[in-house]
Amino acid sequence: MADVWADSGLDLHVLLDPRRKVGSLEQALRAAIDDGSLVAGTRLPATRALAADLGIARNSVVEVYERLLGEGRLESRVGSGTWVRERILPQPSPSAVNRSTRFELDLRGGLPDASAFPRSAWLAAMRQALAEASSTALGYGAPEGVASLRTALAEYLARARGVRVHADDVVVTHGFGELLGLVAAAIAARGGRRIAVEAYGHGSHREVLAAAGLEPVPLEVDGDGAMVGRLHDIDVDAVLLTPAHQFPTGVPLSTPRRAALAEWAAKTGGIVIEDDYDGEFRFDGRSIGAFQSLAPDSTVYGGTASKALSPAVGIGWGVVPASLRDGVLAQRRRRGAATDAITQSALAVLIASGGYDRSVRTLRTRYRARRERLEAKLAEGAPDARVLGLAAGIHCLLELPDGVVEAAVVEAGAERGLRFDGLAAYAADPPTASSRPPTMVVGFGAPPDLRFEQAVAAVIGSIDAAR
Amino acid sequence: MADVWADSGLDLHVLLDPRRKVGSLEQALRAAIDDGSLVAGTRLPATRALAADLGIARNSVVEVYERLLGEGRLESRVGSGTWVRERILPQPSPSAVNRSTRFELDLRGGLPDASAFPRSAWLAAMRQALAEASSTALGYGAPEGVASLRTALAEYLARARGVRVHADDVVVTHGFGELLGLVAAAIAARGGRRIAVEAYGHGSHREVLAAAGLEPVPLEVDGDGAMVGRLHDIDVDAVLLTPAHQFPTGVPLSTPRRAALAEWAAKTGGIVIEDDYDGEFRFDGRSIGAFQSLAPDSTVYGGTASKALSPAVGIGWGVVPASLRDGVLAQRRRRGAATDAITQSALAVLIASGGYDRSVRTLRTRYRARRERLEAKLAEGAPDARVLGLAAGIHCLLELPDGVVEAAVVEAGAERGLRFDGLAAYAADPPTASSRPPTMVVGFGAPPDLRFEQAVAAVIGSIDAAR
Repeated sequence: MADVWADSGLDLHVLLDPRRKVGSLEQALRAAIDDGSLVAGTRLPATRALAADLGIARNSVVEVYERLLGEGRLESRVGSGTWVRERILPQPSPSAVNRSTRFELDLRGGLPDASAFPRSAWLAAMRQALAEASSTALGYGAPEGVASLRTALAEYLARARGVRVHADDVVVTHGFGELLGLVAAAIAARGGRRIAVEAYGHGSHREVLAAAGLEPVPLEVDGDGAMVGRLHDIDVDAVLLTPAHQFPTGVPLSTPRRAALAEWAAKTGGIVIEDDYDGEFRFDGRSIGAFQSLAPDSTVYGGTASKALSPAVGIGWGVVPASLRDGVLAQRRRRGAATDAITQSALAVLIASGGYDRSVRTLRTRYRARRERLEAKLAEGAPDARVLGLAAGIHCLLELPDGVVEAAVVEAGAERGLRFDGLAAYAADPPTASSRPPTMVVGFGAPPDLRFEQAVAAVIGSIDAAR
Repeated sequence: MADVWADSGLDLHVLLDPRRKVGSLEQALRAAIDDGSLVAGTRLPATRALAADLGIARNSVVEVYERLLGEGRLESRVGSGTWVRERILPQPSPSAVNRSTRFELDLRGGLPDASAFPRSAWLAAMRQALAEASSTALGYGAPEGVASLRTALAEYLARARGVRVHADDVVVTHGFGELLGLVAAAIAARGGRRIAVEAYGHGSHREVLAAAGLEPVPLEVDGDGAMVGRLHDIDVDAVLLTPAHQFPTGVPLSTPRRAALAEWAAKTGGIVIEDDYDGEFRFDGRSIGAFQSLAPDSTVYGGTASKALSPAVGIGWGVVPASLRDGVLAQRRRRGAATDAITQSALAVLIASGGYDRSVRTLRTRYRARRERLEAKLAEGAPDARVLGLAAGIHCLLELPDGVVEAAVVEAGAERGLRFDGLAAYAADPPTASSRPPTMVVGFGAPPDLRFEQAVAAVIGSIDAAR
């Protein structure tokens, strides 16, 4: 038997017996259709081309096709050739599909409005990036990312977030999560063991840190943000913080605490990882610049295109101090992930053209309106629940009325198609989980505009049902 | 001091003293221009808008702008506003740019022809993918990848490579390198310790395996491929192989060895990682199907869009047996990398539309012509050098004439702007590195068509100079 590749039309991989090519072609095609190797809807090569490829008479191929047509395995479409007959395509089974789709409205903290993704601006940026790309730019990329994007990000972050940055300092990653893992692994590789994390935050971040070899140590959070004064006592090598808008409690890190944090870093050589996940989205015009500018040599500033564009872009970035840069890039090589240079080049064009800023402004206006609408509706429908947290970002806290517990609201929400969590679900340890009155984290970014009223009504309904 | 965000036009982050807003605006702008936070070529907000944002008189803003214009920090362009004056943008410094750019012609093994990337087909696929994408598709993606791409890949791999696969089995990754690291980490997590690797191969793959916790153990390679009969003796939990076209020696794994490999996996429960990096690119019409079909429950089949499209797409895939799937996905979550769902959706459209097949066929024709041209030119210009390896892929071996050593050819090549390596550079250990006659690995994929003749002439010149 020899393996033969028909080059005519679609690639077709069939095993042929050179002593009886026609018979084995027929058998191979039948078997491939039956076992799904050739799926329904596949167009077969033209008989003339296939015959030439295989070195057999065209008539023989026609006869093979006709027998399979007769068996119902193929179908002929006038003017467009011969196809494997339509059956059901092998879609991933429902259980394997993202489970969140069984919820109609996702109000978990941190989800942006994906329907706002600027599709035509993205496409235009992609077109320009591809038109300008050299062959080198389409080859294997450098682990630190594409130069044009690093330059565009340096300009943007300095301008919009007050980051002290040169393009050389920027490392582009597959989202903030990858950056976090790389930085943690680099700190662990040079002997670090423990990292402070805010007592409330993303459980997935704590998992990434632990997997990279650092033990997460919770740091209490109050109305002034993380209690960084405790850093001196808990003996950590680094700290992960959300200074602009503590996630999810919603408070900014106070000015005195920023100063204390910079002092801790300077004194101990500790590293601050600043997760600036929604720094652009402050609604009251009083933005808080990045903490990084107070301690650029000790801070890894991290951000993402997930909020201002879409998580589906899959890009994040870090501004990494010189002392950690080689370590972070070494970790990136060890993990083997490829550089998505085409996407990075398109994002560079979008930022340089002002399209990224436009998306930020559009979303800021939209989120501000939603936040106001949410507060107004709640004041009407659940006046004994309290909205907490800065007028910023895409989530807020909702302190529940007396006697209403988080679990009951989560359950009542699920019955109404809502997916959201109580504050305890974001706690780093059991003492934290029981330290505040029952409170929900309400993300108002994700539902499409058209369904926003419905989402708010469902939140109120869930609270009422849980009373 | 209060942080103020000017919302008018570009985001502009400046620190203002509320008691003397105008003076502090002037100071802040001057400092931001001087320290590069506001880079040259940035357009400032219109005076009217900025004044409204800051709550000061428009005339005051005009005066501030005029003073900075007078100082040469700003420039005014008729009809288009006020700009930070052109200086040199902070490009990444040359040392940080991919060092390979100092070579004019890159002939390292495994580099595809990036100039062949089907830009307009990619753009059309991107357009269609964005037009069809639901909001859910633009949200945070599932770690196993986008459903439409998993379905398209399952259909393609079954058809073109004879892989036994259902869409549920497919995991989409950031290139083959990430897949390799994830699979190795999953094997290590369930107690695996050692993995056999071909004695010749990519050093970066061995590094990824070691970083994931598996010790790479070299397995000799001869004219029938890797000597898999030795697997029983060397006590490994898994083996990484290139069965279709051993990299870089260029031989396929023989049929008896395939059978022996399947038997080893069945008997020991060992895992085979099949790196099918260029399986589509066989020039003689005698394709070799994926090994995976002989042992689907024990084999991780891995592939990539890097060769048929471009490394800059940044996508690879694995067909992962059920016993490893949860482990691989758990490792992916622990590493924190985001899903590039937009790119994945575009690739799904490209494959489903036949565009991916077209790119494979175009490149196969091009690479076949190059391989023939290379052999013909070498037969003329260096008749005592021998071309070895299958008529396939994008590289071959070139056994050097008697008395010529690899290092001398590498050096002579560098003087001629060539970047390529001797076979010893791909060896997993010192005994392997000295086991064969001096031989170069010549990648013929990367040089653009227009410069291919020049590249071949430079190879011949380098051999002559090293005699």
